[in-house]
Amino acid sequence: MKKIDLNCDLGESFGSFKIGSDEEIMAYITSANIACGFHAGDPGTMRRTVKLALQHGTAIGAHPGLPDLQGFGRRKMEISPEEAFDLVLYQIGALSAFVKAEGGRLSHVKPHGALYNMCAGDKRLAEAVARAVQSADEELVLFGLHNSESTSAAERIGIRAAQEVFADRRYEDDGTLVSRSSSDALITTAEEAVGQVLRMVLENKTVSRNGKEIMIKADTICLHGDGLQALEFAATLHAALKDRGVEVASFT
Amino acid sequence: MKKIDLNCDLGESFGSFKIGSDEEIMAYITSANIACGFHAGDPGTMRRTVKLALQHGTAIGAHPGLPDLQGFGRRKMEISPEEAFDLVLYQIGALSAFVKAEGGRLSHVKPHGALYNMCAGDKRLAEAVARAVQSADEELVLFGLHNSESTSAAERIGIRAAQEVFADRRYEDDGTLVSRSSSDALITTAEEAVGQVLRMVLENKTVSRNGKEIMIKADTICLHGDGLQALEFAATLHAALKDRGVEVASFT
Amino acid sequence: MKKIDLNCDLGESFGSFKIGSDEEIMAYITSANIACGFHAGDPGTMRRTVKLALQHGTAIGAHPGLPDLQGFGRRKMEISPEEAFDLVLYQIGALSAFVKAEGGRLSHVKPHGALYNMCAGDKRLAEAVARAVQSADEELVLFGLHNSESTSAAERIGIRAAQEVFADRRYEDDGTLVSRSSSDALITTAEEAVGQVLRMVLENKTVSRNGKEIMIKADTICLHGDGLQALEFAATLHAALKDRGVEVASFT
Amino acid sequence: MKKIDLNCDLGESFGSFKIGSDEEIMAYITSANIACGFHAGDPGTMRRTVKLALQHGTAIGAHPGLPDLQGFGRRKMEISPEEAFDLVLYQIGALSAFVKAEGGRLSHVKPHGALYNMCAGDKRLAEAVARAVQSADEELVLFGLHNSESTSAAERIGIRAAQEVFADRRYEDDGTLVSRSSSDALITTAEEAVGQVLRMVLENKTVSRNGKEIMIKADTICLHGDGLQALEFAATLHAALKDRGVEVASFT
Repeated sequence: MKKIDLNCDLGESFGSFKIGSDEEIMAYITSANIACGFHAGDPGTMRRTVKLALQHGTAIGAHPGLPDLQGFGRRKMEISPEEAFDLVLYQIGALSAFVKAEGGRLSHVKPHGALYNMCAGDKRLAEAVARAVQSADEELVLFGLHNSESTSAAERIGIRAAQEVFADRRYEDDGTLVSRSSSDALITTAEEAVGQVLRMVLENKTVSRNGKEIMIKADTICLHGDGLQALEFAATLHAALKDRGVEVASFT
Repeated sequence: MKKIDLNCDLGESFGSFKIGSDEEIMAYITSANIACGFHAGDPGTMRRTVKLALQHGTAIGAHPGLPDLQGFGRRKMEISPEEAFDLVLYQIGALSAFVKAEGGRLSHVKPHGALYNMCAGDKRLAEAVARAVQSADEELVLFGLHNSESTSAAERIGIRAAQEVFADRRYEDDGTLVSRSSSDALITTAEEAVGQVLRMVLENKTVSRNGKEIMIKADTICLHGDGLQALEFAATLHAALKDRGVEVASFT
Repeated sequence: MKKIDLNCDLGESFGSFKIGSDEEIMAYITSANIACGFHAGDPGTMRRTVKLALQHGTAIGAHPGLPDLQGFGRRKMEISPEEAFDLVLYQIGALSAFVKAEGGRLSHVKPHGALYNMCAGDKRLAEAVARAVQSADEELVLFGLHNSESTSAAERIGIRAAQEVFADRRYEDDGTLVSRSSSDALITTAEEAVGQVLRMVLENKTVSRNGKEIMIKADTICLHGDGLQALEFAATLHAALKDRGVEVASFT
Repeated sequence: MKKIDLNCDLGESFGSFKIGSDEEIMAYITSANIACGFHAGDPGTMRRTVKLALQHGTAIGAHPGLPDLQGFGRRKMEISPEEAFDLVLYQIGALSAFVKAEGGRLSHVKPHGALYNMCAGDKRLAEAVARAVQSADEELVLFGLHNSESTSAAERIGIRAAQEVFADRRYEDDGTLVSRSSSDALITTAEEAVGQVLRMVLENKTVSRNGKEIMIKADTICLHGDGLQALEFAATLHAALKDRGVEVASFT
């Protein structure tokens, strides 16, 4: 039986600033990536989001980001591998305390935004982040961009990696993502997006922007958690996967 | 044989902003309270300070503070017990990750500055902080002001507390500290300060500002880590304690 | 002809964190208090909000707050008068640059949240804040709680003050606000709130919680900017005032 | 008579975190670049540093940086030209308020660290920053790297630029700085550094790393403000310039 994990970034509110529809999206996902206070999230939000994930039996992951609240961790910063190690380990530790206090167990780590993208293409940063994950707990799974430096680094140093794909992004012939600067970077209909996911999960392949069949072995699919459309899409995808006999379950 | 712990706040640098003489003071103390990034400290400083403490065999404690870097955590803030719980647990978790990664073990928690003072006099805040410590790890010891709501709360909920005293502060007849607004709040000569510590450690008493003998059972003494005078005093006190046959050792 | 100013806090988004319905509420108000980046707001949001206010001909005010983004400036902090002076002057300056760049003119200053409340009851803080306003530009008007230390300080040092009242708060016999901890602190129906405002504006009086008629000379009324109900109430109040022949215009 | 400006970054302390020898260096410089609270500095430090500069008759400049206190504004961040405009204007405004309150006048703006370097090589960023300076006050002078996109942008949009050179950096044949990654990037003896400055000021030329004579028309020289060596070098350079009949005076 085929199996797939659906993950989503959650706990991104900060104090009085509310973001996301965490309660609603929780019903459709199997892994929650919880912000850790640098790009989003705060101690109280972390505790409440951990509790919510545990109530739903959703696997809990740390979602560390760059120290850039104003830019929501989406602006690349020139940090050293050592700085990357330190800020990832710090954030994993902070979230772990809430998970432990609530009686749960941390399952995975997924870097956020610019840090995620920087690691995907930079071997030294990727390895520093993977070592931070390993230092926190060698049982943790690192979620990284499919077929990137992130997941390679994790496997090289000896921790598990989950290959992440996107329902709504188009792929190049070599399996990399079409750059967001291209007009056809995004898949804009739910139908095509569901189709891409089903083909990835059932056949381990997708069709590139140039129409070529390419191999994509996905472990986890990234869903968005904000907005009505995102919730509808999550429900539709979840149902489509179940219809085709795919088990939707956390990677770990 | 009498025994006493000497503790000091360390790891208070932030990025390019350097504070303290951590390497020098480490030789004289037995417990290091390491800042956790809110009032001072940053992930890299935390890692380096943890490593330094482990090299010296110094017991490691988390030193959580209010989220007020500019005020160095010294300005009281009106936070709820729930907010206190969350920010303390977050900071303990963050430091714990570095301690674990370096192969050590977290021993204690000492709240910083305004948070320390707020807990000393506020039963609900004190209990929230004690519960955060307990939630992180019920083996942790909470360092609090001697004879205050902090240490009472710890004992009430079932974790260990260390009664902290000050070498250079004068005491009232009831064992509380003379307010800093009084002209005689501080002991200004090393001789008198050493004398007060020796009496506290050897006889469990001191002399109040009014000349009355009062009972003070100290578990740990707070030393300052910054400035030439602080280092000299630490060396003098350390030597005086050894001379009188007192074992200087971590509380835990 | 009677005249009243309607003010509202705006520009409270921060980066990706969106707050408020600034465009909608702008139609009903005559003074916009724009957050300056400490408790809320960021440079880009400030520029856009200034531009929006200028398009509507709304008077522009700086809305400085405590350096506590996570607490939205609502948690009291023990700051010195000197610190209050400095952080208010800093924020007024920052907003002024955007107002000047867009070709406008800063009209007033209204401290936010906890800083507003702290000034209302603390003579030294109130005077420090009033002096910061005066130092920035002696033509600025300070908006403060009706009949408080804030407005007294402004008048004492020689700048103009606007007495602010609330549509939805009940008053004590002495003209102070009923504490929020009392069950009858808030007026919960639009009808009663509109009634209170009309009586204040037309007759310079209101009825206290104990049923006593008291004098209240209001210069400006604080409206809320967030939520459907707030928008509806603003529209209702605006219409009611016009119906009764009251000119709704900025204080300055 | 030849004339040169000596500038230095000041006011870089943050709360309890003290940096620099502002009082000592002030005697040797003619332009003070004052940090504005993003990469360093805080409202109180800004006020005190402005006052100090006015006491010494030193020209005052704003020294805006990236919003990265932990990295001291030295880590490049991928910000948009619009974000650059906004954060520079914000910081100029904040500093201006203190300058005005103390009875002075803002003379110039010099971007800090990574922002300075980013502008030197990026036409769109450089123009955004120049426009922010112009929007704040079109009389302001923009200090930028000699012969860079920064100074070109200023001149293109119609504000004055000051070409900045470094006493202790070597130059390539084309007048750009030797990259810090090269082993001969830095001039390490005071003698050679003073010699380079004198030749730049008196003859408008220097000798490149390859021994070629190149034209360098300097308006202002950047001095460092921290450390004993920096103070000594400043004194030596100041004396050498006076000896050779060069007027040391602010650019503006």
